[in-house]
Amino acid sequence: MAETTKTVGVIGGLGPLATLDFFDRVLKRTRAVKEQEHLRLIIDNNTKIPDRNAFMRGEGPSPGPALAASAKGLEVAGAEVIVMACNTTHIWEAEIRAAISVPFLSIIDETAAAVADLRPEAVGVLAVDACLKGGLYQDALKKAGVKPLLLSEDSQKTFMDLIYRIKSGDTGDTVKRAMVTLARRLEAQGAEAIIAGCTEIPIVLSVDDIDGELVSSTDVLVERTILFAGAQLW
Amino acid sequence: MAETTKTVGVIGGLGPLATLDFFDRVLKRTRAVKEQEHLRLIIDNNTKIPDRNAFMRGEGPSPGPALAASAKGLEVAGAEVIVMACNTTHIWEAEIRAAISVPFLSIIDETAAAVADLRPEAVGVLAVDACLKGGLYQDALKKAGVKPLLLSEDSQKTFMDLIYRIKSGDTGDTVKRAMVTLARRLEAQGAEAIIAGCTEIPIVLSVDDIDGELVSSTDVLVERTILFAGAQLW
Repeated sequence: MAETTKTVGVIGGLGPLATLDFFDRVLKRTRAVKEQEHLRLIIDNNTKIPDRNAFMRGEGPSPGPALAASAKGLEVAGAEVIVMACNTTHIWEAEIRAAISVPFLSIIDETAAAVADLRPEAVGVLAVDACLKGGLYQDALKKAGVKPLLLSEDSQKTFMDLIYRIKSGDTGDTVKRAMVTLARRLEAQGAEAIIAGCTEIPIVLSVDDIDGELVSSTDVLVERTILFAGAQLW
Repeated sequence: MAETTKTVGVIGGLGPLATLDFFDRVLKRTRAVKEQEHLRLIIDNNTKIPDRNAFMRGEGPSPGPALAASAKGLEVAGAEVIVMACNTTHIWEAEIRAAISVPFLSIIDETAAAVADLRPEAVGVLAVDACLKGGLYQDALKKAGVKPLLLSEDSQKTFMDLIYRIKSGDTGDTVKRAMVTLARRLEAQGAEAIIAGCTEIPIVLSVDDIDGELVSSTDVLVERTILFAGAQLW
């Protein structure tokens, strides 16, 4: 089995801690005893990709070309499937797909499919401004017949502050508690499940923190990546 | 500063947990607040490189060509300096250097230099069979005028067992305690410092566990990599 798995290219650095977290979770979930049974991953922790939220505010260059170049570099280095350990940058999915000739697994599509399996009426979406502005989860959920619930404008501002704090390395109790509060507000609005639609979220929020289901986009992508590459899950 | 740092290529997967640990330590030691201030790292978690210890026992193919190909792939993907998050594979350093046209930072040379700065008479070396058979640390220490002390044959067998357990993901208390016992045996032989000369070791052994200095080859490489790439340390 180990000899026939696909090499996975990971566009990362969006931010670095989320990439480390993705890598960690892939290692933990892959059914492997020997080193050689683990997947070969080529990870581009590309911290030089322009700020997505700034671009969506009209305050900086598009991250599209840098993301496409990163995907192409991974393919040239040997990747046979590309994934991206970030939700928001899927706004540029078409630009990335156009640059490569290997398959691309979308964290949005895979997460929306995992949510649809739960058959909820309404789902809370925790995602950054740019991701929401791009309508990524709203569109995918509506297609699946699920109503997306979003944070109020004020709560969304708090959420953005938390994400930037996690990106800078602050994963302490204050940040954790504030994130739980936001998730519970979505539950109070009627969310039967919460999508952790940003790879920084599962670093501080776990399913035990809320009443309903937590669908971590990171965990969904980890599982689908391992299976797609031909390895097995623990 | 952030805009002018070098992209670092990391040959990893030797094993995967040591690569994750190296990545984690680079993020923690880099003086960065914003995502964009972190280094761009391209990590080849290449778990398909042939077993080094098996090759040195005459029981498998040379890892040299796969290591050289990995280094070349990282350069093609954009790496401006190459490092390897593994000590033993530095046996094939010449083969790797011959495949690339960017600088290569040696974990052995950097660690031996860090040890020489402590001016000890004798230093204990914890390293796997293949690394010892290749004489990597013995040669580098003798050149620096430091006497290398090695484990007895029996203790070395225990050490190898521990390394394979860590590589398979077992980093529990039993493994930790057994590693401390081995380090303390080297201290009893007169070692004023211990070289953690395998990137699996710092996952279970820290300086607080022993009497003298612990020189972690991982930490040395992390520091030298960050500085060489043009970023700063916390």
